[in-house]
Amino acid sequence: MCIDGTAGDPPAAHESEEPIVLLDKLNGPEDLKGLSVPELEQLASEIREFLVQKLSVTGGHLAPNLGVVELTLALHFLFDSPTDKFIFDVGHQSYVHKILTGRKDRFDTLRQQGGLCGFIKRSESDHDVWEAGHSSTSLSAAMGMAMARDFRGGTNKVVAVIGDGALTGGMALEALNHIGHEKRDMIVVLNDNEMSIAPNVGAMHQYLGRIRTDRHYQKAKEDLQSLLQKVPAIGGKLAKTAERFKDSLKYLLVSGILFEQFGLHYIGPVDGHDLEGLLETLQQASNVQGPVLVHVVTVKGKGYKPAEADSFKWHGASPYKIESGQMLKAVGPPMYTDVFGDALIELAERDERIVAVTPAMPAGSGLMKFAARFPGRMIDVGIAEQHAATMSAALAMDGMKPVYAVYSTFLQRAYDQVVHDICRHNANVIFAIDRAGFVGPDGETHHGVFDIPYLRHIPNIVLMMPKDENELRNMMQTAVDYNDGPIAVRYPRISGRGVELDPAMTPIPIGTWEIVRPGDAAAVLAVGPMVEVAEQAAELLRRDGLSLRVVNARFIKPLDGAMLDELADEGLPLIVMEEGAVMGGLGSAVQEHFALTGRSGVRVSLIGIPDEFVEHASIQEQREACGLTAQRLAAEVLAVQPRRKRATNQHS
Amino acid sequence: MCIDGTAGDPPAAHESEEPIVLLDKLNGPEDLKGLSVPELEQLASEIREFLVQKLSVTGGHLAPNLGVVELTLALHFLFDSPTDKFIFDVGHQSYVHKILTGRKDRFDTLRQQGGLCGFIKRSESDHDVWEAGHSSTSLSAAMGMAMARDFRGGTNKVVAVIGDGALTGGMALEALNHIGHEKRDMIVVLNDNEMSIAPNVGAMHQYLGRIRTDRHYQKAKEDLQSLLQKVPAIGGKLAKTAERFKDSLKYLLVSGILFEQFGLHYIGPVDGHDLEGLLETLQQASNVQGPVLVHVVTVKGKGYKPAEADSFKWHGASPYKIESGQMLKAVGPPMYTDVFGDALIELAERDERIVAVTPAMPAGSGLMKFAARFPGRMIDVGIAEQHAATMSAALAMDGMKPVYAVYSTFLQRAYDQVVHDICRHNANVIFAIDRAGFVGPDGETHHGVFDIPYLRHIPNIVLMMPKDENELRNMMQTAVDYNDGPIAVRYPRISGRGVELDPAMTPIPIGTWEIVRPGDAAAVLAVGPMVEVAEQAAELLRRDGLSLRVVNARFIKPLDGAMLDELADEGLPLIVMEEGAVMGGLGSAVQEHFALTGRSGVRVSLIGIPDEFVEHASIQEQREACGLTAQRLAAEVLAVQPRRKRATNQHS
Repeated sequence: MCIDGTAGDPPAAHESEEPIVLLDKLNGPEDLKGLSVPELEQLASEIREFLVQKLSVTGGHLAPNLGVVELTLALHFLFDSPTDKFIFDVGHQSYVHKILTGRKDRFDTLRQQGGLCGFIKRSESDHDVWEAGHSSTSLSAAMGMAMARDFRGGTNKVVAVIGDGALTGGMALEALNHIGHEKRDMIVVLNDNEMSIAPNVGAMHQYLGRIRTDRHYQKAKEDLQSLLQKVPAIGGKLAKTAERFKDSLKYLLVSGILFEQFGLHYIGPVDGHDLEGLLETLQQASNVQGPVLVHVVTVKGKGYKPAEADSFKWHGASPYKIESGQMLKAVGPPMYTDVFGDALIELAERDERIVAVTPAMPAGSGLMKFAARFPGRMIDVGIAEQHAATMSAALAMDGMKPVYAVYSTFLQRAYDQVVHDICRHNANVIFAIDRAGFVGPDGETHHGVFDIPYLRHIPNIVLMMPKDENELRNMMQTAVDYNDGPIAVRYPRISGRGVELDPAMTPIPIGTWEIVRPGDAAAVLAVGPMVEVAEQAAELLRRDGLSLRVVNARFIKPLDGAMLDELADEGLPLIVMEEGAVMGGLGSAVQEHFALTGRSGVRVSLIGIPDEFVEHASIQEQREACGLTAQRLAAEVLAVQPRRKRATNQHS
Repeated sequence: MCIDGTAGDPPAAHESEEPIVLLDKLNGPEDLKGLSVPELEQLASEIREFLVQKLSVTGGHLAPNLGVVELTLALHFLFDSPTDKFIFDVGHQSYVHKILTGRKDRFDTLRQQGGLCGFIKRSESDHDVWEAGHSSTSLSAAMGMAMARDFRGGTNKVVAVIGDGALTGGMALEALNHIGHEKRDMIVVLNDNEMSIAPNVGAMHQYLGRIRTDRHYQKAKEDLQSLLQKVPAIGGKLAKTAERFKDSLKYLLVSGILFEQFGLHYIGPVDGHDLEGLLETLQQASNVQGPVLVHVVTVKGKGYKPAEADSFKWHGASPYKIESGQMLKAVGPPMYTDVFGDALIELAERDERIVAVTPAMPAGSGLMKFAARFPGRMIDVGIAEQHAATMSAALAMDGMKPVYAVYSTFLQRAYDQVVHDICRHNANVIFAIDRAGFVGPDGETHHGVFDIPYLRHIPNIVLMMPKDENELRNMMQTAVDYNDGPIAVRYPRISGRGVELDPAMTPIPIGTWEIVRPGDAAAVLAVGPMVEVAEQAAELLRRDGLSLRVVNARFIKPLDGAMLDELADEGLPLIVMEEGAVMGGLGSAVQEHFALTGRSGVRVSLIGIPDEFVEHASIQEQREACGLTAQRLAAEVLAVQPRRKRATNQHS
């Protein structure tokens, strides 16, 4: 095995003639039980090779999975899934688990429509007991499963695997506090790779770093341990004091004082790539009564040199060339994400009040260049969406212009903070909401399809979405110029339309829509990327002799009431089209407007995402599955034509 | 001063002739600066008496404020508000702060319409810099204000005051992790009274308890300190190891290892009622560079015997008799909250799968009797709404029937967990959503007016609201019988209608509404308490010769589509009336239904809460301010009558 691909090594293993023996024979975790440690080590190598090969074609979360090969093997070797419950935090590190539980033949379909999910998926296997795409849920899940076990008098193990990044998410700490209080049997495996997706920040991370690196401290501990063993028992009046003192000193013997203080037994740190050590440590943990935390130090990307060298880049990989580690790059216009990042730098050059806030996603949110340009104005709080929101409110209330850059799906975690701390204070926080709409292969846990319904009913907020990347820039200027409260711009996880970028950013009057194409057969009120889809529909309809008016409904809140009223007066059939949940979306907002202004008889058709969770696939496939296409819109336009006209057109 | 009212004491101070001197002269915090410690102590007594007297008439958060009299005095004596920023977590313990900042004359209006707010309120005073009704926001706010100060090169102090209960809320722990990392100057005052609202649970609480009580440990620390001072400096090769060892031992000298490990300097614990000690400790804290946590131990209810004896009951007090401590009780039908609690016991007797989950609100949620009856099935997780939700999902997925009892406003904090962990897993979690609608004097941070918009767009959830307390019982049975996913019942913070309770609880078919009153002038689709209001409106209209059909729209999701379609076919004007945000509410749901089924021309009027935050007042006043009245509904019915008919009726 030498997929490390270091110079001078023999040819990479995927080209070698050596037969892959163990992996081929493996059909389920029961096949592991008879293996020796050397055999498990060979299997680890084979799994690494399998992952590097398969993901070079499909892309996927390579580095996290290379880091947990031995750990996952050890868990399945020692415990009995699915009777024993394995709970993977987030679950993008569950590929090895999938390989070991009978799904290795489906890896060619990874993250594709109808194919293997990139996360834990209960419908795939009985071994998948907890699904998660958002971080920090595993400890709460483990607590629930441990309680349920105890209620029904069960004896199964509950094992949560959580990364050091996820551990600082608020709900994980809430769970830790409860776990330490309840003292139920469970094993928390802390997969400490010094990274969540970006390098971790926060005091907890520094604390773990001290444990990992402080060898002097380790030596001191050993000295003290032997000293304590020599202290004779003390009798009489002083006995209790002496015992307490000795107990206190014992704190020095465990590295994980913090966890011990939270009420968990701590074991570690142990090298997560030393199978023998891992097996021994986990065995020891399984004998502990009450909750135990096993601190496992792993290397993200382990065994594949390019990923080890830049585990940040290799967290989620595009397809790549195995030997060079060169990832295939998409060609085309820049992503909205990058246009946002560049615009923010321009704005920050001119306005000292601007600071960027990210909950552990500086790269994903397009802020790496900003961080390089303004390191002091880049605030990465770690996985802490709630804290980021409330801190932003306070920054704004004290005169700053915080730009909270966050994925739509992760902002869900700060809903209360948006209501209670930002909007109720009417604080001048700018939200840059990325990944609005479908996200493609990450699937149902990651879509940004609820933010219109969960934001627009909150008083004081302004909510915008651009039709193209140039308008995104103008909206950023709009947001910076706006000083009357919170303002959000949402944009999708796709490339821009390739339009030219104006050198200057021009603010847009709040609450104004624009007609991007005239027409009199119907008017579509389209949001964001749906404007382009609507323009395509207009082209289709032109062939039928119908002209579709396309309105860029760029303000989701406040609506352009004046334009709506004009449309109502004209009597044009209206169609609202949005890549978001149809319930509570822009379509509802339009209907509310008419109802509240005494025009509720206006006919409005709604095209949006139906009331269901949409699985992984490409964004285009997801749109097609939900009818967010030019064809569907064109059909709807035809359907809402007055009867006589429609009959003519349908046969034209 | 003897409002303690212990037997044999002289007459209570409020009856004494002794003139109240210092408090009368106090107009702002600047008036404190020249006072001596004995004078401050006298002022503390006067403030206690003032609070006990005033709140005996208005009601309010007595016990928390009696606990922080000396602490608040010390802060205003030492620091310069509003240049120095005081951030009170939650803010119900800010009465003393209000007294000291020029608002003592407004205490007769406390929590009343147009009167003094029961929480921090920026519009009241420059000294109020951060508003909060939800817990655990203060550390994030302090972090934001400390950063803003540093960005603008300021030198002001930032002081957060947080309770030990609030400290275990996830976002406070997220903030702690960031604060310890950033090391900016700020003072965190931990107001440790061993309570949030209920007695605290959790490992953090146990940890604080050990600090407070372990005197042996305290002695050991002192011994070790003197020992360490005697250790000579070591030179040569061993120096570094020896120094590290000594550093490690120093951990034993501070009680707050946990906080030190989070990167904060720890000082304490200090008696929060010893003014001299407090002043000294806070002065010391203000000289520390970087973040410092001051552990202040206070007694909730301090100085008023009934409140000291039962600070739980006296957290939020109704008006009471000062001498006896007897609170005035409302007479009338039972609260919805209590009907829920009793129903849950009945259900749990018959179904072992049922467990109750509360985030630190066992009494507020009506669960005290349940806790007494089924102590092992009562899970209080502390202030941890997110953990409670996700843990409930796991409990349900492993065969239990968790009933997550939570206030509507606090469930906001678990929005993502409801989406990602409960609804996406389609887990059989029952939500008992209390305080749905207006809450009265607690005001804008506590209303339950957003849960319809923030829940109904989530796939898989069923959402109900009863028209009376008997229907609440039936809905609880409906929820327990339902095994197809999450189901929520929401109910208001008011008494029931006084209807008879059926001995048996009868499940209601999912998605069915009922006509509670026939009529043909219009149909009102009313939710929860609005059904009674609609019936009143129907009575008003009867005098006009109009009959209003009143529909109990008891399922907010799924809608009763069949009934809606019949209504549309009949052509009756429809009015939706709900005590919730009109944006994204039931009214929108009804309009969506018509749009998605090709009937978008149906006329619908919406009566709900407009797009603004509604301030403290009585519930009735809040309803009137938003037009949620029988008069308004009757007027709307008249307005939507066909022109000829309306003209006749308006003059009848």
